[in-house]
Amino acid sequence: MPNPPQPSSAVLTPEAIAASVTERDDPVRAADDVARYALGLGDDALVLAQRLGSWIANAPELEEDVALGNIALDTLGHARSLLTYAGSAWDQTEDDLAYFRDEADFRCRQIFERPNGDFACTIVRQLVVSAYFTALYRGLAGSADATLAAIAAKAVKEVAYHLDHTTLWTVRLALGTEESRRRTLAGLEAVWPFVDELFAADPAADAVPDAAVAPAGLREPFDALVLPVLARAELDVPAAPALRGGGRLGVHSEALGPLLAEMQVLARRHPGAVW
Amino acid sequence: MPNPPQPSSAVLTPEAIAASVTERDDPVRAADDVARYALGLGDDALVLAQRLGSWIANAPELEEDVALGNIALDTLGHARSLLTYAGSAWDQTEDDLAYFRDEADFRCRQIFERPNGDFACTIVRQLVVSAYFTALYRGLAGSADATLAAIAAKAVKEVAYHLDHTTLWTVRLALGTEESRRRTLAGLEAVWPFVDELFAADPAADAVPDAAVAPAGLREPFDALVLPVLARAELDVPAAPALRGGGRLGVHSEALGPLLAEMQVLARRHPGAVW
Repeated sequence: MPNPPQPSSAVLTPEAIAASVTERDDPVRAADDVARYALGLGDDALVLAQRLGSWIANAPELEEDVALGNIALDTLGHARSLLTYAGSAWDQTEDDLAYFRDEADFRCRQIFERPNGDFACTIVRQLVVSAYFTALYRGLAGSADATLAAIAAKAVKEVAYHLDHTTLWTVRLALGTEESRRRTLAGLEAVWPFVDELFAADPAADAVPDAAVAPAGLREPFDALVLPVLARAELDVPAAPALRGGGRLGVHSEALGPLLAEMQVLARRHPGAVW
Repeated sequence: MPNPPQPSSAVLTPEAIAASVTERDDPVRAADDVARYALGLGDDALVLAQRLGSWIANAPELEEDVALGNIALDTLGHARSLLTYAGSAWDQTEDDLAYFRDEADFRCRQIFERPNGDFACTIVRQLVVSAYFTALYRGLAGSADATLAAIAAKAVKEVAYHLDHTTLWTVRLALGTEESRRRTLAGLEAVWPFVDELFAADPAADAVPDAAVAPAGLREPFDALVLPVLARAELDVPAAPALRGGGRLGVHSEALGPLLAEMQVLARRHPGAVW
């Protein structure tokens, strides 16, 4: 099995965070307002991981099956750490937060809930969000909240790899065949209207300026990461207007409901137990 | 990303096997009859990995999402190594073998192509096949074929972990609620008729007795691994008669066709390229 627990990152894993809360004299327990911020970040990662998971058997190369599967599992790991930490403020587990909230209580930005589309669309979305995550976690590694800083410091290495991986694919697809270029362009057109929302105000971040990274400040490092890739792939930034967003306020697209239904059905059938 | 390439296992990864075949003076190239044997083992793992992948977003706990995802990726790794090695005999890549063979050319045993059923059914199947894989790879680690021995030596540690994991779940489900026990029993009834085929004759194994493990010889170590788990879970071995099988001869259940269709559609749309 990959990803054995590593002593050096003990504070970062969901298990270690949960153990700290329940077992230690000096527990790592999130402050309520920090937890609200962590919840949004965790929901972004959780919903994206669900989307990516469906590629594990369906990529165009076995090697890419493995790569997208690993990206999904990395992202799910970030979600688990963030949700475990958020839940520590409210005596809730990661599973409580993942499986027993309704759609309006989810705080993910809408780009993460978009349907996968075809392989090119998934790759372009993953390029964009990997650049966003890289900028985010680099900033968050300097958080005044030690647990968020530690989660981010571990995550940033993984998302930087995701960015490298999707950069290679984006260039390969965009400069490949006529058909692959057409699909890459279509993917970019579909994804880009959701980009602005990533940098829109987040009341939960505003409430904890020392712990959080201000979303607006991430635009510049995001552009510095992603625009050179688009240039290399000879792709123009789409001119389509940004969509309104509102994920951090619980405003979601029609795509989130079915995703949550699939994710939550088994856990909800008999709450608190497996059947 | 988990699973970074490890220098110590260079000969075992599909990339290293492929590089060896294409780049080295003294390439690792499978003999034709060894390749036929490896193909069957690789198909077992490939088809199972496809089945498990669909759980990545749908297990009853986030931790279990990660665990089943990791088991799927481990299994896909075994498939890639075995198919890469098999393909080396015929100048074919792992992708050629995975995506461009028709159903009758697949050699997987039928238990691997069974639909997942519910979570309990998936766990019981995974218990059974993990016990089988553990017995198989322990034996194959002593193969006279150095590449098969190396692939097996790496895989055996992973499948032993899968066996531990599914043992815990089987006991938890079987001795849990009335509903979870009912489902576990139903899963065992569904899976067990496919167990005998795992130990049925395989002409490809008979052809290379020094390189292969004779399937019939795996029954005893399999029983020694799995029967104590069933006893601990208070589950009787089902009395239903064994099904006929024939996977190693290309005889498959109705479940394989749709699985292959989903797996192969993207790669086949434009052979040799991504679109």
